[in-house]
Amino acid sequence: MKQIEGGITAVSGVRAAGVHAGIKAAEAKDVALIVTDVPATAAGVFTKNSVTAAPVIVCREHLSDGRAQAVIVNSGNANACTGEVGMANARRMAAATAEQLGIDANLVCVSSTGVIGQQLPMDKIENGIQAAAGVLSTEGGSDAAEAIMTTDTHPKSVAVEIEIGGTQVRIGGIAKGSGMIAPNMATMLSYLTTDAKINAETLQAALNRVVDDTYNLLTVDTDRSTNDTVLILATGCADNAEIVKPDGEDYEAFCDGLLFVCTELVKMLARDGEGATKLVEVVVKRARNRDDAEKAARAVAESPLVKTAVFANDANWGRIMMAIGKSGAEFDPYQVDVCLADYQLVKAGMDARYDEDKATGLFAQDPVRITIDLRAGDAEITMWTCDYSYDYIRINADYRT
Amino acid sequence: MKQIEGGITAVSGVRAAGVHAGIKAAEAKDVALIVTDVPATAAGVFTKNSVTAAPVIVCREHLSDGRAQAVIVNSGNANACTGEVGMANARRMAAATAEQLGIDANLVCVSSTGVIGQQLPMDKIENGIQAAAGVLSTEGGSDAAEAIMTTDTHPKSVAVEIEIGGTQVRIGGIAKGSGMIAPNMATMLSYLTTDAKINAETLQAALNRVVDDTYNLLTVDTDRSTNDTVLILATGCADNAEIVKPDGEDYEAFCDGLLFVCTELVKMLARDGEGATKLVEVVVKRARNRDDAEKAARAVAESPLVKTAVFANDANWGRIMMAIGKSGAEFDPYQVDVCLADYQLVKAGMDARYDEDKATGLFAQDPVRITIDLRAGDAEITMWTCDYSYDYIRINADYRT
Repeated sequence: MKQIEGGITAVSGVRAAGVHAGIKAAEAKDVALIVTDVPATAAGVFTKNSVTAAPVIVCREHLSDGRAQAVIVNSGNANACTGEVGMANARRMAAATAEQLGIDANLVCVSSTGVIGQQLPMDKIENGIQAAAGVLSTEGGSDAAEAIMTTDTHPKSVAVEIEIGGTQVRIGGIAKGSGMIAPNMATMLSYLTTDAKINAETLQAALNRVVDDTYNLLTVDTDRSTNDTVLILATGCADNAEIVKPDGEDYEAFCDGLLFVCTELVKMLARDGEGATKLVEVVVKRARNRDDAEKAARAVAESPLVKTAVFANDANWGRIMMAIGKSGAEFDPYQVDVCLADYQLVKAGMDARYDEDKATGLFAQDPVRITIDLRAGDAEITMWTCDYSYDYIRINADYRT
Repeated sequence: MKQIEGGITAVSGVRAAGVHAGIKAAEAKDVALIVTDVPATAAGVFTKNSVTAAPVIVCREHLSDGRAQAVIVNSGNANACTGEVGMANARRMAAATAEQLGIDANLVCVSSTGVIGQQLPMDKIENGIQAAAGVLSTEGGSDAAEAIMTTDTHPKSVAVEIEIGGTQVRIGGIAKGSGMIAPNMATMLSYLTTDAKINAETLQAALNRVVDDTYNLLTVDTDRSTNDTVLILATGCADNAEIVKPDGEDYEAFCDGLLFVCTELVKMLARDGEGATKLVEVVVKRARNRDDAEKAARAVAESPLVKTAVFANDANWGRIMMAIGKSGAEFDPYQVDVCLADYQLVKAGMDARYDEDKATGLFAQDPVRITIDLRAGDAEITMWTCDYSYDYIRINADYRT
């Protein structure tokens, strides 16, 4: 596996663009368009929030046949809590994109991120779609990565070249995370491309598997958006033998590549979480089962008291013990070991007589890795999060400034 | 029902004391002792955290016969994650108290709150117990309320006089909340007294019922301590006919009084949450059932994005919709109404065209009440929380300062 430049447009058969359409107040790009030369096999995973934004509903509908040729995204307005007008606008975004590209509207996926509860400025959106269609290029991946940002501090893009059955296959991805435009919550969007030949069912299986181990193990502030979306488009331009079922060597090689791309994007998202100063990896080892491992890791990764301690370089292991204790995971407290990097803080549930200065120094490592050994089974999981700083409050308390 | 002065010692047959024993660094009271003249019927509710502190284990054991005559509490050290030495120290606290009072150790309840993972300074504790026993008085409730504090900004104490079957009965209570001494998490402790004649089983039933509607609906930062404890001691000094089963008029009158005392204490705890500038009541109406009501209310009350918006006086209803959407409660988003105080922000899931300045002004009301009508059934619940301010980060990031 080799990491390469170019993000989503490193993949053959993919063009992209990002333009400024005036939806955001600032002079920033706010409409992204991703297009494949031919209809791609496609798969998606969407927010489980029952207050679902209109574009998510339309996107899920258009993906139901496992095919897509374009993704249109706007930032600056989430088109959520917008009723029937919002649904009509989401459909209009797909239709306007389809008209520009001369394809069927059913082949267009739609996403929005930004303010909740306001109607989309459709004239600006339509002008933006036209402008984006006019500048589509095989170098446009980075513009698209920029156009999906809200208050992310930088665009997030990854690509790899892998080998499947002796032939080169590429996988690229972009994502936006935990920035916001008041009044809004963080929306996580990610778009992945590949030139692998792979059928729609297998692509969906691979995406589900990788999302469970990456995006679903990312937590910035426990809040789940109305608009979260991960999409993958496979152009089939590579020369691999088509992957037609979710097992075997080729499938595993594809999943490995996809896992790498998604893991890198998730780390970028956590590191750029609102007000974050650090990327934090919470590893839970030897849990009774995966469910317990995730419960324990999530309780630590979402604990405000743990996250403020990490911000303060405070090896506050009592808070970690508290968090796993409240998680619902089954374990014997006096069997638990906790390490910061490879340095032991807790031995058999009690103070390991560690050196406070040395522990404080380990918070300078990137990422800050907290490993919790439950000695209750053989399940292991890694979750990604960030610390809680003053800036988290500043960013989320500042209103329309 | 009439609110009266005196807290736990407003109740006949109860004496209390709070002294400085040197466990906390500052010159503050850190040992509290509550004693009843005769063995009281007693009931308790304890943390569900599986990392359970030693005093909680001992206290639960000593309460198993439904009787108690004393409660000994220290602040400054939680005696949690302290292994067998910690267990022996918790037992020694009970024994030393029993020796001072000339009663059986089994009649002594034990609590600790403060630093996790360090052994108790037993010489200071024993001196403190002796000193407290020497100054027990029927005016000592406020000293006890002070001695259980960690970084609470003020002591919390309530008492009421109610009528049960034509006779006067009193109920008093003290509590400590969401302050902390690094490295520790917030521990919630509350001690209640009454002179009602009531048997142990009925007292436990009343306590369980009231705790479910008060302490269990309080959330400051989602973290649950290793030491949380609510105890009630009933001296039986009042003249009411003994309440012997959990139904009937007398039982309901007792529960009403207990509910009032606990609700007031819970509001004080929320208002004094770490860094809190506001008490926030989240009311969910017309949920499908109680479980759904609690899920929706908890998701709003625990959402960092909602809490920072409240801090900023920002009527950010999109975040409220997001929070109830992620809660798992069942409802139709386009049936939901949301009010701030009595002012409607959301009508049928969309912007109610409210006035932004008027909404901002309503954040000055105390408490800030957010009412969410789900139109999905007839269950209703109220949860209490506070906002998230810069000071939450400051308090929890400052390390041993």
